[in-house]
Amino acid sequence: MSTPPPYADVGLLAPVRAGTPAEEAVGDLAWLQAMLDAEAALVRAQARCGTVPPAAAATITALARADLLDLRAIAVAARETANPVVALVAALTAVVADRAPDAAEYVHRGSTSQDVFDTAAMLVARRALLPLGADLRAVAATLAQVAAAHRDTVMAGRTLALHAVPTTFGLKAAGWRQLVLESVTRLERVADTLPVSLGGAAGTLAGYLQYATENPEDPEGAVPGALTAAFAAETGLAAGALPWHALRTPVADLGAALAHTTGALGKIAADVLVLTRTELGEVTEPGGAGRGVSSAMPHKRNPVLATLIRSAALQVPAQAAVLAQCLATEDERSAGLWHAEWQPLRECLRLAGGAAHTARELVGGLRVHPPRMRANLEATGGRLVSERVSAVLAPRLGRTAARDLLTEVSARAARTARPLAEVLTAVLAEDAALVGVLTPQQIASLTDPAGYTGAAGALVDRALAPTHSHTEVEDGQH
Amino acid sequence: MSTPPPYADVGLLAPVRAGTPAEEAVGDLAWLQAMLDAEAALVRAQARCGTVPPAAAATITALARADLLDLRAIAVAARETANPVVALVAALTAVVADRAPDAAEYVHRGSTSQDVFDTAAMLVARRALLPLGADLRAVAATLAQVAAAHRDTVMAGRTLALHAVPTTFGLKAAGWRQLVLESVTRLERVADTLPVSLGGAAGTLAGYLQYATENPEDPEGAVPGALTAAFAAETGLAAGALPWHALRTPVADLGAALAHTTGALGKIAADVLVLTRTELGEVTEPGGAGRGVSSAMPHKRNPVLATLIRSAALQVPAQAAVLAQCLATEDERSAGLWHAEWQPLRECLRLAGGAAHTARELVGGLRVHPPRMRANLEATGGRLVSERVSAVLAPRLGRTAARDLLTEVSARAARTARPLAEVLTAVLAEDAALVGVLTPQQIASLTDPAGYTGAAGALVDRALAPTHSHTEVEDGQH
Amino acid sequence: MSTPPPYADVGLLAPVRAGTPAEEAVGDLAWLQAMLDAEAALVRAQARCGTVPPAAAATITALARADLLDLRAIAVAARETANPVVALVAALTAVVADRAPDAAEYVHRGSTSQDVFDTAAMLVARRALLPLGADLRAVAATLAQVAAAHRDTVMAGRTLALHAVPTTFGLKAAGWRQLVLESVTRLERVADTLPVSLGGAAGTLAGYLQYATENPEDPEGAVPGALTAAFAAETGLAAGALPWHALRTPVADLGAALAHTTGALGKIAADVLVLTRTELGEVTEPGGAGRGVSSAMPHKRNPVLATLIRSAALQVPAQAAVLAQCLATEDERSAGLWHAEWQPLRECLRLAGGAAHTARELVGGLRVHPPRMRANLEATGGRLVSERVSAVLAPRLGRTAARDLLTEVSARAARTARPLAEVLTAVLAEDAALVGVLTPQQIASLTDPAGYTGAAGALVDRALAPTHSHTEVEDGQH
Amino acid sequence: MSTPPPYADVGLLAPVRAGTPAEEAVGDLAWLQAMLDAEAALVRAQARCGTVPPAAAATITALARADLLDLRAIAVAARETANPVVALVAALTAVVADRAPDAAEYVHRGSTSQDVFDTAAMLVARRALLPLGADLRAVAATLAQVAAAHRDTVMAGRTLALHAVPTTFGLKAAGWRQLVLESVTRLERVADTLPVSLGGAAGTLAGYLQYATENPEDPEGAVPGALTAAFAAETGLAAGALPWHALRTPVADLGAALAHTTGALGKIAADVLVLTRTELGEVTEPGGAGRGVSSAMPHKRNPVLATLIRSAALQVPAQAAVLAQCLATEDERSAGLWHAEWQPLRECLRLAGGAAHTARELVGGLRVHPPRMRANLEATGGRLVSERVSAVLAPRLGRTAARDLLTEVSARAARTARPLAEVLTAVLAEDAALVGVLTPQQIASLTDPAGYTGAAGALVDRALAPTHSHTEVEDGQH
Repeated sequence: MSTPPPYADVGLLAPVRAGTPAEEAVGDLAWLQAMLDAEAALVRAQARCGTVPPAAAATITALARADLLDLRAIAVAARETANPVVALVAALTAVVADRAPDAAEYVHRGSTSQDVFDTAAMLVARRALLPLGADLRAVAATLAQVAAAHRDTVMAGRTLALHAVPTTFGLKAAGWRQLVLESVTRLERVADTLPVSLGGAAGTLAGYLQYATENPEDPEGAVPGALTAAFAAETGLAAGALPWHALRTPVADLGAALAHTTGALGKIAADVLVLTRTELGEVTEPGGAGRGVSSAMPHKRNPVLATLIRSAALQVPAQAAVLAQCLATEDERSAGLWHAEWQPLRECLRLAGGAAHTARELVGGLRVHPPRMRANLEATGGRLVSERVSAVLAPRLGRTAARDLLTEVSARAARTARPLAEVLTAVLAEDAALVGVLTPQQIASLTDPAGYTGAAGALVDRALAPTHSHTEVEDGQH
Repeated sequence: MSTPPPYADVGLLAPVRAGTPAEEAVGDLAWLQAMLDAEAALVRAQARCGTVPPAAAATITALARADLLDLRAIAVAARETANPVVALVAALTAVVADRAPDAAEYVHRGSTSQDVFDTAAMLVARRALLPLGADLRAVAATLAQVAAAHRDTVMAGRTLALHAVPTTFGLKAAGWRQLVLESVTRLERVADTLPVSLGGAAGTLAGYLQYATENPEDPEGAVPGALTAAFAAETGLAAGALPWHALRTPVADLGAALAHTTGALGKIAADVLVLTRTELGEVTEPGGAGRGVSSAMPHKRNPVLATLIRSAALQVPAQAAVLAQCLATEDERSAGLWHAEWQPLRECLRLAGGAAHTARELVGGLRVHPPRMRANLEATGGRLVSERVSAVLAPRLGRTAARDLLTEVSARAARTARPLAEVLTAVLAEDAALVGVLTPQQIASLTDPAGYTGAAGALVDRALAPTHSHTEVEDGQH
Repeated sequence: MSTPPPYADVGLLAPVRAGTPAEEAVGDLAWLQAMLDAEAALVRAQARCGTVPPAAAATITALARADLLDLRAIAVAARETANPVVALVAALTAVVADRAPDAAEYVHRGSTSQDVFDTAAMLVARRALLPLGADLRAVAATLAQVAAAHRDTVMAGRTLALHAVPTTFGLKAAGWRQLVLESVTRLERVADTLPVSLGGAAGTLAGYLQYATENPEDPEGAVPGALTAAFAAETGLAAGALPWHALRTPVADLGAALAHTTGALGKIAADVLVLTRTELGEVTEPGGAGRGVSSAMPHKRNPVLATLIRSAALQVPAQAAVLAQCLATEDERSAGLWHAEWQPLRECLRLAGGAAHTARELVGGLRVHPPRMRANLEATGGRLVSERVSAVLAPRLGRTAARDLLTEVSARAARTARPLAEVLTAVLAEDAALVGVLTPQQIASLTDPAGYTGAAGALVDRALAPTHSHTEVEDGQH
Repeated sequence: MSTPPPYADVGLLAPVRAGTPAEEAVGDLAWLQAMLDAEAALVRAQARCGTVPPAAAATITALARADLLDLRAIAVAARETANPVVALVAALTAVVADRAPDAAEYVHRGSTSQDVFDTAAMLVARRALLPLGADLRAVAATLAQVAAAHRDTVMAGRTLALHAVPTTFGLKAAGWRQLVLESVTRLERVADTLPVSLGGAAGTLAGYLQYATENPEDPEGAVPGALTAAFAAETGLAAGALPWHALRTPVADLGAALAHTTGALGKIAADVLVLTRTELGEVTEPGGAGRGVSSAMPHKRNPVLATLIRSAALQVPAQAAVLAQCLATEDERSAGLWHAEWQPLRECLRLAGGAAHTARELVGGLRVHPPRMRANLEATGGRLVSERVSAVLAPRLGRTAARDLLTEVSARAARTARPLAEVLTAVLAEDAALVGVLTPQQIASLTDPAGYTGAAGALVDRALAPTHSHTEVEDGQH
């Protein structure tokens, strides 16, 4: 067992992502490697364009390895220059110079810190989005099964904390799935357009051109396009229209899509937490040795997965807001707004990734208890179908009178703890004008909650049907 | 002059939107009318489906007029039920009953507050997005002209508050334009999918079905699809796959797109404020009688338009974060999260709309001062092209040695307030190894800032070219 | 019935504050009057210092009436100057000039927009804090009674959504009260130090001095102190050490204290919403005709007050974050950060004020149902006291073995739906080593939830005791 | 050089705090040790109360060492229980059992995860606030010297990005200092009241009492007070009135105070960044080898310290908003809101601590350039004193006429690039009514910017005077 250094954050305060794929995907080592990957790809791109010897590019690529550098030293040195690239370039240059002095000339040639850092950020994001996307698609696939399996599992619909009218667990699961698929769509849209950063010192590519041509003005405009395309090809990222040092859409878009993701998963968690409550008991989180235990109470099996997901959902919108705020940046590169993005972007990726991984486990093992759903549904003696009875009587009594009647009947049923059907029967019998309006059979049928799920089943079918179900998302290799 | 009621907000604290189209588009009266429009469209949709007499639908439509209701009374009554729809339904029913008693039965039949409110919110959003989109497209069109006109207007590129290397005002304007077009794309994506809300009491459509059919379970699933399609057709909104009472993507998406919008405009404002500074003086806001005056200082012409836009950009991300937070809602309808969306959604729409209107005026009349740009560019005696000289010397001296040399030369030039060329000439002459490396002509040429704008011109051309310029956005009738 | 103008917000989207005292206290009319009050107080302060004729000060004071001005025109005109004061000064000057030409000279003399606006903001805040404080103190006073009345009302303590160990409703209410009193303390701390704003054009008071003395440098430094003190005396606000145009602590402090307030009230709301759930039914919101009704479901009595409070608690932290963000303002007056504060400050005040008013109604009429609490407590057959039995057995079995035993017993009890006591008895009897460890009476006593409320009663007593109860807050005339 | 593990964050993305005292103070290792300190203090407190053998307490204290545990394993295990305490208790118990089996019984006896975690959080906060407070007091002390030294250093006051009227750098520095001292006051207020957390499973202390007495109801109420007092004594923290598992004021207060702190420091940074601009050049950050270099441009010396501070100021308000949001927590312990606090609390502490450390370096070495200030002040040919001339003429011409005259004169001076004095002289000479109103000497004197600093000097004196200067803060040993 090696103790992490005292300045390190190794996940102790963030169980939602501790040990999940997201953590390593966005850890400092991954970020360092991504910066090195960006440096290597840049020199290969320059070699493609014929302005750097291919051998030098190969050498730099081979030596652009995080394990050859001192990560912490680079982190601390970043205080001197407000970003870690300056120290990274020095360290990489030294590594290369030590082994291949000629190649060292070509490290970071014509480049600027932000090109390397932002390209690395996009690489990190793309890499982190892979397990995140896979987890989300798995969540959606499982929820499709859950929704189908519980298409007709009746439960109380709840609004403003109270029983409203019946619904089905299938419809709830189908809604969860839709939200998750909407996140997938948003994340894919962003992932597909993550761009390389290539602008040079102030976004004009002048340094690259100066090294590339005798005439850095490049009147034909061929070089920037070619170099950017080559850099994009080498990294697998997109080539945007303009350098984006001060046009921060890619980062803001990531924040927005990731906030949607934790919001979608947070909706699932919020529902699971309600349904798990001791008095409701309609679902149970997947268990296992040690899962959900309390340090104090032997009987506890806490809904820890939903709890963790919710903790992420509460944090990411604020982080994403920082990213959105940083759109309004000044100059060709901001003194501060750029720098304020880094940790919030990581947190968005890490928390969303952890939440998705956690959600996959949650929905994969969620136990659903239809008998408890049914029992809870019956708890109000049928009052939650008052709307239905009101609707049936409306044509005869008028909508308002019918509604008033059911208001009174519901209140009396609640006060006396009698079934709605019983009170309704009595009330109808009391009033000459209402006698015979409904037969006992009709009353029994109308007040059966299971008979009033509306279009729940049809909606589930519709949501799961191929045309609505984004099957390309679930089947495809994105 | 009539004094607004004491409880009213009429824009006194929000000059960025006071008197702009956004304000009326999202005012309480507009919202009230949109709710009435939703009620009317719903009954017409039911008539289309054959479950309501067409005459009743026509009557209700004719009477669904905000001027027949007491807006403030409905607002205050909303405290009793946590939303304004209950009181609105009562008031509308009374209006209809007064004139056409038979039709009153069909007001809000089978419906629920959230269907009406959320559909109204989407109508309000769509209406508010129209002037917003028009303003943004106008801003982009103007910026295309500005970018073209200033394609070769050289100015100092600035990073971390300091002169970096030269750039052009055209490239800056092209970047502004790209951001604005990216906002347009994001807003259109959202605008095209704003959905009707149709779920009934708990998202199962049961109430609608109960009134529509003898069997509210609707085993064939035909009714919800038909009714939703009819409602969509009557409102011009989209028909989503599932009721979205608790699946809040449409609202969160609006927040994200509007935060991008004020961020994009905020970037323009941030740059204008920097360039307007007394010592820089590179641009001036459009003037006019009374514009930008100070209550204290006769000489002031404050950059008030950029100031207002920035004030919006500082507020909207926080409002959008509230909307993202509300995705993680519990149950079939939340007790609080739904309600927390309303005012922030309005603020996002209103501030973005006001900011876009203000930006249109700002860029439409922005005065650009190339001589000041040129003068500022010369202010450092050519130090801002140190990168270029370093690049030129690198092949001869090695990258590091060249860089170190220029660091020294730049520092000496700064300390002694001499031009870079002069100090460079002296330094090269002092060192036998460097003598003759550069001719005086080469030095003069290399240290001319205007000669080092890299690909700026080509990038402007590329950004403005039809394939990159989203011309469909600018030309088209959206 | 008069229709508000189409650009107005009259509370339709914010029922938490519609019609509450906060609304009028911070409405645009109140803000306009506060600006006029600031202008009048300033000229009276100058008169106190002998630099303005007292008659002019009296005239201006008499005419500084919002009803003499066109509020909307001033709001719209604010677009020209980025704040409403320039237009207000022109309008007030015209009013005065019309009636007392000589006095018109003294309107806003030596002053600047921010002095007037910020002083007005502090006046508005102070006025809005009065009903807010009164409501909070009333909430605390009621909660003291509730806590005392339910000192020994046993209920399930709930953690991570599940029954934990027993607690009392009195302890819960005492906790609510403590939070509210902590808000009161924080608000009073801020209220007591709300300062006048007096700085002149750039915070040096030069304009005031120029008018006040022949020598605006005021070497003795007497004038600023005297004028600030006089202005403070005339407004009833505090006199800070330095002009605070760019030192925004007062506004940020208001945001922080108001976010605490809605958070504290939001805690009450969150608990009420849980306890109101149909399956729990432990509390009911105060009712009344029309209160909590649904537009769809006759049986519903929604917890609307808690819902409204929660909606405020979800919004205010984001608004307060905007205010905190605006601390990092540039220059002697920011181009945008100052302007971004205004509406968020109003929202903080208005939402907190509305929430407090709503909370007063909520706690004042909250119905508590001890029988339901008791029934729910029994629902797990005593499992929620597993901790206690474990603690009793620990000295005999060792802590870990005791805990493991109770884990097993609890799980078996849950699975078989048998009381903990019964399973425990059986398990102890099965194991020779455990026979006789507890007598049947001991088991019965230990597993009675009502016997395991720990220090709940003592804690309530302690929290309500005078030394802890901030009686000065409740008794005092603040 | 050892490579940190791939899941670790070692500061690469956060140079504002990399290598500063804050980082280690709030690192995971510090947090782990603080939890162990809490466990040890708890058992010592129990020993004080006579319910645990003192020898066991001593043993546990001696073994409560982070280096004996596997930090990462505990972090990952926290996923199973949603907090790290369960695994920590198991690990600590194993360590103790291995060496002193009898003592192992007393580890975490009667306790609950939240008591340990929250007490640890308060210990971490207190420890992190020490270097933060020291750095802030050092910043304030330096700023006092700067303000005194530059009491009369005239510079342009700037509002809405433009020259307003003159001010002094001393007044600016005095304002910075005041903000920092206000942060100190707010942090001390919080630091002095950071409480132990002692509530047991659901805030009733029942577990502690069960172990402590035969009768866990403790009718006299003596135990909780005694145990809490002992725990407070052992930790050095405060003893609050009530367990605060669900009353989150301490955490929200920390967030608010830390957001004020980074806001205050962010104001300094914002000003430094403006004054550092190439065209202004009024201040320079402290230099040093490698400080502020660019990876591209040899001539650059970027204002990196201000940039880093600003990056913190942009992040902390959002983190603090999460903490404020978490006040509205449900139940006796939330499923998610508690967990959402941890990382944001750390970020608030870490970013504020790093920013303060950075600010100490910034102000400690800030170079101020009065000649540049003076040169910039002259740049508008005296237009920035137009207010003064207007004030002088007002008594003769009337306020409005004087103002209009100066508006015209200023505009003409700007358009023709002539000094204000010259244009004013010409204008006065042109108009028979104005001839002789001001002598040439008067005009020269009035238009000298250095003569119009108002009360700047007096305000500096006042701000630095003992009664306003919080000397206890600077002198004292806090």
